[in-house]
Amino acid sequence: MAPYSVLVTGANRGIGLGLVKEFLKNKEIQHVIATARDPSAAKELNAITDKRLSILQLEVTCDNSIKSLCTQVEKIVGDRGLTILLNNAGILLEYHTNQEPKRADLIKNFDVNVASVAVITQTFLPLLRKAAAQLSTDEFSSSRAAIVNISSYLGSISGNVWGSTPRGFLAYTTSKSALNSLMKSMSIDLKPDHILVAMFCPGWVQTDMGGEGAQITIEESLKDLVPSILKLSDEHHGGYFNRDLTAISF
Amino acid sequence: MAPYSVLVTGANRGIGLGLVKEFLKNKEIQHVIATARDPSAAKELNAITDKRLSILQLEVTCDNSIKSLCTQVEKIVGDRGLTILLNNAGILLEYHTNQEPKRADLIKNFDVNVASVAVITQTFLPLLRKAAAQLSTDEFSSSRAAIVNISSYLGSISGNVWGSTPRGFLAYTTSKSALNSLMKSMSIDLKPDHILVAMFCPGWVQTDMGGEGAQITIEESLKDLVPSILKLSDEHHGGYFNRDLTAISF
Repeated sequence: MAPYSVLVTGANRGIGLGLVKEFLKNKEIQHVIATARDPSAAKELNAITDKRLSILQLEVTCDNSIKSLCTQVEKIVGDRGLTILLNNAGILLEYHTNQEPKRADLIKNFDVNVASVAVITQTFLPLLRKAAAQLSTDEFSSSRAAIVNISSYLGSISGNVWGSTPRGFLAYTTSKSALNSLMKSMSIDLKPDHILVAMFCPGWVQTDMGGEGAQITIEESLKDLVPSILKLSDEHHGGYFNRDLTAISF
Repeated sequence: MAPYSVLVTGANRGIGLGLVKEFLKNKEIQHVIATARDPSAAKELNAITDKRLSILQLEVTCDNSIKSLCTQVEKIVGDRGLTILLNNAGILLEYHTNQEPKRADLIKNFDVNVASVAVITQTFLPLLRKAAAQLSTDEFSSSRAAIVNISSYLGSISGNVWGSTPRGFLAYTTSKSALNSLMKSMSIDLKPDHILVAMFCPGWVQTDMGGEGAQITIEESLKDLVPSILKLSDEHHGGYFNRDLTAISF
């Protein structure tokens, strides 16, 4: 059986939009909740006619926006709770070691890519716990709900051989390592709740963020990524993976 | 030969104060610069009579304070530049997965422990480059100046088995992983400048931050840590170490 419901942040374009389309292909999923900062401007999302899709407003850096979203999602999913929280929204602000220091950019990158993910996850824990309490034990192996995070291989500290060049990855890389660390800690804290936690690198994807020269299309990334998400089991808890579920070293 | 000069942030107490005292025992070091948010309140620093010690004001979260410090340090070290920048100042704000979200605490921990370290390091790069250009190649092996960071084994993502319990380590752990990542990137960027970068865990030390139950005294930590800092060579560049220079996995 497939997960009952999935919420994808930053779903108006790029990988987030692709995830929504891909999850909607799965007939067993009952609710796909797509968030965007400005739903009225999310043309591609609005063009989808599938009644299982809800498009909701979310500004990830605003705690009240997160609370309001959670109230709306609770009404949609009801007593079955939220099965998968997919933290996808993120930014890449260019930052080089050899530039004038710009503290605000370092903090903004952390706020969107890490602090917001922490606050969203904490706010949605009651709905995830509800799902974990509902579902039978064969889903996600013994875990019964999941927090899936779009990280990046750039967040691998041990694998970092590029530094901040050539595209000014310093703030982004730092934020993705921090995201991996945050989620590793949360995975330990949430194990007793049967909530599975995993981090994925979608690959170097042809999106606005991926830029020119990216290696694969969104479709190529998702062809691997979504089946990997649905294949997650206890052995993957707290892990950091490529889109084909091979492990990445922290 | 020993390094010419060393700057220690957060030197009014704990490990920072201990580092200052320990470096002053090394007769070959000409300048030890100790920073504190409020130098007039730093009683133990002010009690040290060694003329090689300069006590200067620094609020690490204030860019202007960092710039002002750099101007003063430039006057002290002159054309020889700064040999070792020792980023020690840090905070631990308690944060649990299972608490009300508090974005400001996540950001504050990141700002002090990571963004401030980035801005300080970037601001001092000209003085570190000056030292790297001055010194002969046998110091720090072929590296000739160093950025040394007080991290923590809590920042090891792969080694994390504790989560946010029992003391609310979530924000701190995340910030130290981010610090390790920031410095790994910078190590790559600064290799051509012969500036060595390393991260250390001082151990679980009996300080205000370490709390009750900490395993070792400040003296026990520094007995290993300072010799390890002075033993750093190219093979340690970008690495993450215990105080005895054994490697920690990211």
